[in-house]
Amino acid sequence: MSQIRQIALHLTAVLFLACLIQGELAWISELPGSRMPEEQNDADIFQEYQLAMESVWEELEWFPVPLSDTNPQAEVAFENSWMAERNYGGKRRHEGTDLIASIEQAGYYPVVSITDGTVEKVGWLEKGGWRIGIRSRNGNYFYYAHLHSYASDWKAGDTVQAGELLGYMGDSGYGPEGTTGQFPVHLHLGIYLPLGADQETAINPYWMLCYLEDRKLVYAY
Amino acid sequence: MSQIRQIALHLTAVLFLACLIQGELAWISELPGSRMPEEQNDADIFQEYQLAMESVWEELEWFPVPLSDTNPQAEVAFENSWMAERNYGGKRRHEGTDLIASIEQAGYYPVVSITDGTVEKVGWLEKGGWRIGIRSRNGNYFYYAHLHSYASDWKAGDTVQAGELLGYMGDSGYGPEGTTGQFPVHLHLGIYLPLGADQETAINPYWMLCYLEDRKLVYAY
Repeated sequence: MSQIRQIALHLTAVLFLACLIQGELAWISELPGSRMPEEQNDADIFQEYQLAMESVWEELEWFPVPLSDTNPQAEVAFENSWMAERNYGGKRRHEGTDLIASIEQAGYYPVVSITDGTVEKVGWLEKGGWRIGIRSRNGNYFYYAHLHSYASDWKAGDTVQAGELLGYMGDSGYGPEGTTGQFPVHLHLGIYLPLGADQETAINPYWMLCYLEDRKLVYAY
Repeated sequence: MSQIRQIALHLTAVLFLACLIQGELAWISELPGSRMPEEQNDADIFQEYQLAMESVWEELEWFPVPLSDTNPQAEVAFENSWMAERNYGGKRRHEGTDLIASIEQAGYYPVVSITDGTVEKVGWLEKGGWRIGIRSRNGNYFYYAHLHSYASDWKAGDTVQAGELLGYMGDSGYGPEGTTGQFPVHLHLGIYLPLGADQETAINPYWMLCYLEDRKLVYAY
């Protein structure tokens, strides 16, 4: 075999194996001027992400903490703490928004479901305390943590309506079951999309809470 | 050179070139049990998208159409028409939000910049009519279309402040320069992120306009 023929053969093998390693042979048939596969893939992921975000926005109905019919001092404050540092249980990032009670009394504020959905998780978590996780109709996960108590004996699979009472705001968590008082009374809200490797992509609830501020129920408390 | 040695040499060359083609040598040092490169890539893209979205939310300052200090009937209505079909200029999807005037009079409503930024594009577009495109501080593109007229003789590079008068709402577009009256008076708002192959990823402005509804300036008109 001539040396040139050998080199040509090797180059062909290299290209063929490179294609296999990339997991696709698609670019061979790519038309000139069309996008590179990687960029196309990025665009698909943007699109997927965007549709997933739309699916959350569209199903938002009620601010999670209703107004009091009698006490105008009963308010909650929240700020954009997306990815702020948290230290309990090792350095980690804050994947949610805290709604801080103006009245420091566990069990006082009602917490309602933002969306229609189904109870998926309920009970104690070391970091989350008494928590409830609602899977919405569009398949998104709404995580309400640090509750004082539950409004009913929730079981996985129970249906909830947007605006339905889930429980009461508290200061549970950061320790073994029943731990309270490790931080001020507040509601931690997390929203997770069924995207990515673990199907649990956290998004920032802050802007959604801003949107819901004009959508508050009034409860007797 | 023995045949085995030759094969080994070729395999090394194949692997090396495959790495180069993939544009990265990173996977060589990948630990067992870590995510597949593709999944990691997806997660990176989610992260990139999410940060880009944050960069838009954070810079939103004013609703693009101020209130009138004298005429409470001067309102705008808008709905979520994200990706609704549009027919002018071929079938396409609506990449923005239309703010529809309650008073059908071109040149009546002021249009202000939502963000600080710099004028990037100004002048006539067949689909957009008299338009102005503002590149915000965070590098996002805010596109205001179908204007009746401009507030000043804008040039690319001019600095604008959030809340600054850009021009007046109209019904220009859908034809050669100067065409008007092809549709009701409205402002088309588009928001584009510098992401993806063309660095122009449209996002849905609807939820951002909902957020800005509580942030309206009052102008004399």
